[in-house]
Amino acid sequence: MAESVAVIGAAGYAGAVASALLHRHPHFELAHVTARSDAGRRLDEVHPRSRVPLMLEEYDVDKHADVDAAVVAYPHGAAAPVVAELRERGVRVVDLSADFRLHSRAAYEDWYGEHGAPGLIGDAVYGLPELHRDEIAGADLVANPGCYPTAAILALAPLARAGLLGDVVIDAKSGVSGAGRDPTADKHFVAVDETVTPYKVGRHRHTPEIEQELGATVTFTPHLVPIAHGELVSCYVAPTREEDVRALYEEAYGGEPWVEVVEGPPGMQEVRETNFCRISVHPVPGRLIVFATIDNLWKGTSSQAVQNLNLMFGRDEGEGL
Amino acid sequence: MAESVAVIGAAGYAGAVASALLHRHPHFELAHVTARSDAGRRLDEVHPRSRVPLMLEEYDVDKHADVDAAVVAYPHGAAAPVVAELRERGVRVVDLSADFRLHSRAAYEDWYGEHGAPGLIGDAVYGLPELHRDEIAGADLVANPGCYPTAAILALAPLARAGLLGDVVIDAKSGVSGAGRDPTADKHFVAVDETVTPYKVGRHRHTPEIEQELGATVTFTPHLVPIAHGELVSCYVAPTREEDVRALYEEAYGGEPWVEVVEGPPGMQEVRETNFCRISVHPVPGRLIVFATIDNLWKGTSSQAVQNLNLMFGRDEGEGL
Amino acid sequence: MAESVAVIGAAGYAGAVASALLHRHPHFELAHVTARSDAGRRLDEVHPRSRVPLMLEEYDVDKHADVDAAVVAYPHGAAAPVVAELRERGVRVVDLSADFRLHSRAAYEDWYGEHGAPGLIGDAVYGLPELHRDEIAGADLVANPGCYPTAAILALAPLARAGLLGDVVIDAKSGVSGAGRDPTADKHFVAVDETVTPYKVGRHRHTPEIEQELGATVTFTPHLVPIAHGELVSCYVAPTREEDVRALYEEAYGGEPWVEVVEGPPGMQEVRETNFCRISVHPVPGRLIVFATIDNLWKGTSSQAVQNLNLMFGRDEGEGL
Amino acid sequence: MAESVAVIGAAGYAGAVASALLHRHPHFELAHVTARSDAGRRLDEVHPRSRVPLMLEEYDVDKHADVDAAVVAYPHGAAAPVVAELRERGVRVVDLSADFRLHSRAAYEDWYGEHGAPGLIGDAVYGLPELHRDEIAGADLVANPGCYPTAAILALAPLARAGLLGDVVIDAKSGVSGAGRDPTADKHFVAVDETVTPYKVGRHRHTPEIEQELGATVTFTPHLVPIAHGELVSCYVAPTREEDVRALYEEAYGGEPWVEVVEGPPGMQEVRETNFCRISVHPVPGRLIVFATIDNLWKGTSSQAVQNLNLMFGRDEGEGL
Repeated sequence: MAESVAVIGAAGYAGAVASALLHRHPHFELAHVTARSDAGRRLDEVHPRSRVPLMLEEYDVDKHADVDAAVVAYPHGAAAPVVAELRERGVRVVDLSADFRLHSRAAYEDWYGEHGAPGLIGDAVYGLPELHRDEIAGADLVANPGCYPTAAILALAPLARAGLLGDVVIDAKSGVSGAGRDPTADKHFVAVDETVTPYKVGRHRHTPEIEQELGATVTFTPHLVPIAHGELVSCYVAPTREEDVRALYEEAYGGEPWVEVVEGPPGMQEVRETNFCRISVHPVPGRLIVFATIDNLWKGTSSQAVQNLNLMFGRDEGEGL
Repeated sequence: MAESVAVIGAAGYAGAVASALLHRHPHFELAHVTARSDAGRRLDEVHPRSRVPLMLEEYDVDKHADVDAAVVAYPHGAAAPVVAELRERGVRVVDLSADFRLHSRAAYEDWYGEHGAPGLIGDAVYGLPELHRDEIAGADLVANPGCYPTAAILALAPLARAGLLGDVVIDAKSGVSGAGRDPTADKHFVAVDETVTPYKVGRHRHTPEIEQELGATVTFTPHLVPIAHGELVSCYVAPTREEDVRALYEEAYGGEPWVEVVEGPPGMQEVRETNFCRISVHPVPGRLIVFATIDNLWKGTSSQAVQNLNLMFGRDEGEGL
Repeated sequence: MAESVAVIGAAGYAGAVASALLHRHPHFELAHVTARSDAGRRLDEVHPRSRVPLMLEEYDVDKHADVDAAVVAYPHGAAAPVVAELRERGVRVVDLSADFRLHSRAAYEDWYGEHGAPGLIGDAVYGLPELHRDEIAGADLVANPGCYPTAAILALAPLARAGLLGDVVIDAKSGVSGAGRDPTADKHFVAVDETVTPYKVGRHRHTPEIEQELGATVTFTPHLVPIAHGELVSCYVAPTREEDVRALYEEAYGGEPWVEVVEGPPGMQEVRETNFCRISVHPVPGRLIVFATIDNLWKGTSSQAVQNLNLMFGRDEGEGL
Repeated sequence: MAESVAVIGAAGYAGAVASALLHRHPHFELAHVTARSDAGRRLDEVHPRSRVPLMLEEYDVDKHADVDAAVVAYPHGAAAPVVAELRERGVRVVDLSADFRLHSRAAYEDWYGEHGAPGLIGDAVYGLPELHRDEIAGADLVANPGCYPTAAILALAPLARAGLLGDVVIDAKSGVSGAGRDPTADKHFVAVDETVTPYKVGRHRHTPEIEQELGATVTFTPHLVPIAHGELVSCYVAPTREEDVRALYEEAYGGEPWVEVVEGPPGMQEVRETNFCRISVHPVPGRLIVFATIDNLWKGTSSQAVQNLNLMFGRDEGEGL
């Protein structure tokens, strides 16, 4: 029998993709889609490409907690209390926000401010299947990784495990959808077109998440590029010792269905609207350069959420992807 | 001695380009730049590319009417009262809005609503130099044409004059800067990228302006394209009779410094950030197809305003362009 | 039992999409992929996004005609002889070229030059399922429509059937993939970026195909826009009489799974990498304006080819799409 | 009296911009423009935006060495012999190629192969005015810097001089015009659109040039972005000691007319088609991040060539820019 799923916050980019994937999923049944400002409109009116003919409703826990699982697509801070009340009713949750990604409450509060449900931090599993598959399968609360961390961690985990990570610089390039759907001056077409813009230099909130999973300090700098969706991380590693690293990547990802290790640099088009992460490794004098691409809204967010749901409910990991 | 000019509404795209052109103009002196929401910031902070190091001030007629001329870059409706009070103080005005473009008050009120200074309609000259050069030279109030009308009228005027305009379809493609600087959902990068969007189908306010100048009825449909600035009009004319029309274009524009009649279809890159309009004419079975490109913010708005100011003050028409 | 299919010319954009769709099709089995200049490379190396791990081979009828069906993705002229020899061996063919689209050999030779297999013209069915579903089901040779004709004919067929088509202007905007994969100067990124370029004005070869299916004369002008794939046709029709046309569209397409009639103008993003055609109809004074969007490589070419194959082999029309 | 200048290789992007700048220069007279494959066409036909109505001729030293100066816009290897024969006839040269940028012949031959005019290496001055203004003024042969080196060296020179450069990673993003005008598969619009592509990882030939001028080893990795022209270098420096570096930049560039040190990250639009380099410096924990933008065809190539010519002939450095 199909498990039912609600998407809370379905009118944003991430929520809409998650809804579309669940709506056409061979197993799960998309039961509710909720939205704040767009409630009362159909999801396929707000996001025609989703082709989900469900009405967006105002979120109401009494109404929407009758499901087996929920994907919560709220901003950090707003997510925690909603996750808490869904968990209280027994709903298993994949949370797309940052609220449960950091194991350390102190680290969270340094970067994000007060935590809205600190009691749940210990229950959450970091939802990167390639690293934490087994824990995810048994989890009731999965903290879906940020888009940059997904790419950066997959790019560098084999080196981290081998103790090869010395100094790390990550220069990331992201499509504009990563910055959300609200129309702000920095997302105006004219502001984005024909330029590349570094932002949140030295203070992007995905930094502690990357550092937690890699166990290393990184300099992380994202750049906005004139692209709708897609993400490339260019990682510059001073290795702690010389070693043939290609074997590490083969070993790490040879059996992974959604990670492709390639020769040439990976492109964004190759992973667009897929759950793939594509990685290439380039030893150069004195350094290892690793590139990884993902679709920030898919493997970087919503298809990874579905991958996590599949695992949580014992389905084949790639079902519906 | 240099005449002084104020730009009223300098923080929008059009006002910023006008300010930049006047600031580096060999003759005019840019005396004031005003803005509504950005007052208190320097123009080169809001629009670095302008490189105008003047402070944006709140508009105050008592303070800013000490100039010989003003370029008013306000939306329609808001422009008329400001134009009126500047004219009362003897300031010669180039108005970038639609408020004084239509000779008929009734037509204006049909398309735009109540007129804010109907008494001035009769004083205004339609500021398309290639059609009304002599009137502009003597005018105190010049209504700068809309961007689409500039391209469409220049494309079709030779046919109109020769009585050749039968049925006319104008399919226009415009860069996003034509829609203004306020960040709305339809100008979000993700909404504009990788698509073309017709808008205001059958009811774009530039229609009556084109019809007034051509003396013909037109079907005019603009489309937003994923381009920052630049504009192409594709005009489909059922001619009233067969005639070799190339000669008409040579005659009309052979001596015009800012109109280039070319063989192949014109491009937007060729006119970007210039005062040029580039035109090609293609007779095909049963129809004449005329293409014209301009930069919507330059010949379509602000460099044309400077061209008009040059004429109004007896300067060489191309000075500073 | 699965029918086997070969894609002849799989290294171009259209062939690669057809191969990808057939490779993951639940019923058909992709047996061969051939290429001219890229033979000896794997398709997923040339087109990683296809994720088809088959080797591209030099086409050899003795080797590749052991299939139930073939999709021929050759340029016009080159296609006809290959289609002919495949047909001789009993292979059912969907031909993506123009070689069998026009019923009149004379018309073909006017627009394209000598025909390579005139004896087969009479056997071919024009493969637009929404117009010719029943004939396609029984056909051994289906001429897959051009991309512009697919959009233009779907946009205008309800008006044509009702005898409403007076004068017709079609202004089309297409992504660059429509112009093919060979790197020519006009497809250089710098030539395409930030401009819109009309091409083949008055002489585009899709014109006779549109006219054949609509039974009307049209002025058709395509424009290249800075977009990878996607296509919009803006159709301006002088109707022969006044009539409420919305009902015609509801009637024509209410039961069609792949045609969406919408209120606002359709976008390209909504149909990207789908088999959908999205249409809106706008009556304006004196004219009907109809917009339609498709993905030129999907409904405009390769997913439509699969839709045709599904019909030819008695499958559900949308299988694998 | 005006000095006359020839542009040798005027049909490429760089040569066309140099020609356009010299054609409208208030002092220099553009005497000849030469081209290889486009000889016999007018430059404004090949590059309409240049608006240079001169005929492109096959280069012939007997015909074209009657000038005071030449800008040679040939690829490396092809440039050296032409530079040599022009120098023999007493023509002062700005060479846009890499042939005379490296002081060490061995380094040149390591990266580029045999040198075509090694005897001239010692005569050449590295044409970055902000570093070598006085030498340029007296030079007969100026090696115009590469585009990436221009941005990277300006970004890091103040740190280099202060002995602050520890480990350096440079992640560069460039518009496609930087890769030249020949239409290759990697510059096809469809290949570039909606992706970012690292290239020549670990082996880009601009590396030794950056290292020569900074006296430091760098890891330099360029990326192609979907932009026509413009360039951003993101420089990650592990400083050798803590120090307030802003003062260094103020001191270095406070009096420089073409270098703008700004607070926020610099953009490409702000420098497009200008001779400006825009720099921002961001101290973050453990590192200094420096961003710099230029237009790769202007300050990165051709307007810098004119800046050099101005210096060589005792003109004001910014004349005609």
